[in-house]
Amino acid sequence: MADAKPDAEHIRSVFERYCALLTAGDVEGVVALYAEQGSVEDPIGSPVHRGRDAIRAFYAASAGSVALELEGRPRVAGNEGACGMLARPKGATVVIETLDTMIFDDDGLIREMRAYWSPETIRPDPA
Amino acid sequence: MADAKPDAEHIRSVFERYCALLTAGDVEGVVALYAEQGSVEDPIGSPVHRGRDAIRAFYAASAGSVALELEGRPRVAGNEGACGMLARPKGATVVIETLDTMIFDDDGLIREMRAYWSPETIRPDPA
Repeated sequence: MADAKPDAEHIRSVFERYCALLTAGDVEGVVALYAEQGSVEDPIGSPVHRGRDAIRAFYAASAGSVALELEGRPRVAGNEGACGMLARPKGATVVIETLDTMIFDDDGLIREMRAYWSPETIRPDPA
Repeated sequence: MADAKPDAEHIRSVFERYCALLTAGDVEGVVALYAEQGSVEDPIGSPVHRGRDAIRAFYAASAGSVALELEGRPRVAGNEGACGMLARPKGATVVIETLDTMIFDDDGLIREMRAYWSPETIRPDPA
């Protein structure tokens, strides 16, 4: 992006694009949201994927198999954002209640993503 | 708590109690949710309040002046939790869309809290 720092509008748009790209199975589109040395911890407590190659491999295994939507509006504070999300594995009858936090670099790329979900946040769909 | 590690039920209950206590203006109740050396960064980017004395001073300045409720269900991953929240300053006609992340220690106390909000996440109420 042209600006020196990512603004709130940019951060919100990344959360929206992230959901759309992941749902569409567009692995390269998702990877392009990340900084070259970005990291993904999804879910929190699992091994961290660092760098675009590792991030690509992680998303390639799941992209397109889940319908992901935001729950509530993305929150923004400085170069950080966070938003609740609902992930529905296609063909399944459960919803994973998750929430992603993202830290952005000065180019507006994701430097760090962490996902808050666990077996305890999966519920039948509809509840 | 009796268990060695905080479980999902405990973490969810802390998010609920946090909102109720803050809304009620129960400063000591809120402080008691924190570890002795806990920290609060609210909003992200502002000075960090570390230790119960600093945390008490921080909440004493605002407790009871805001009605705080959860937006969506708390997410849990290991000893970390996160949830969207809506904060309505009493007597005002705005809602602050915020989101707290909390890391818990083995005693189930909050070791670190960070709040995602900024002027960009305040909107008229009702929208």
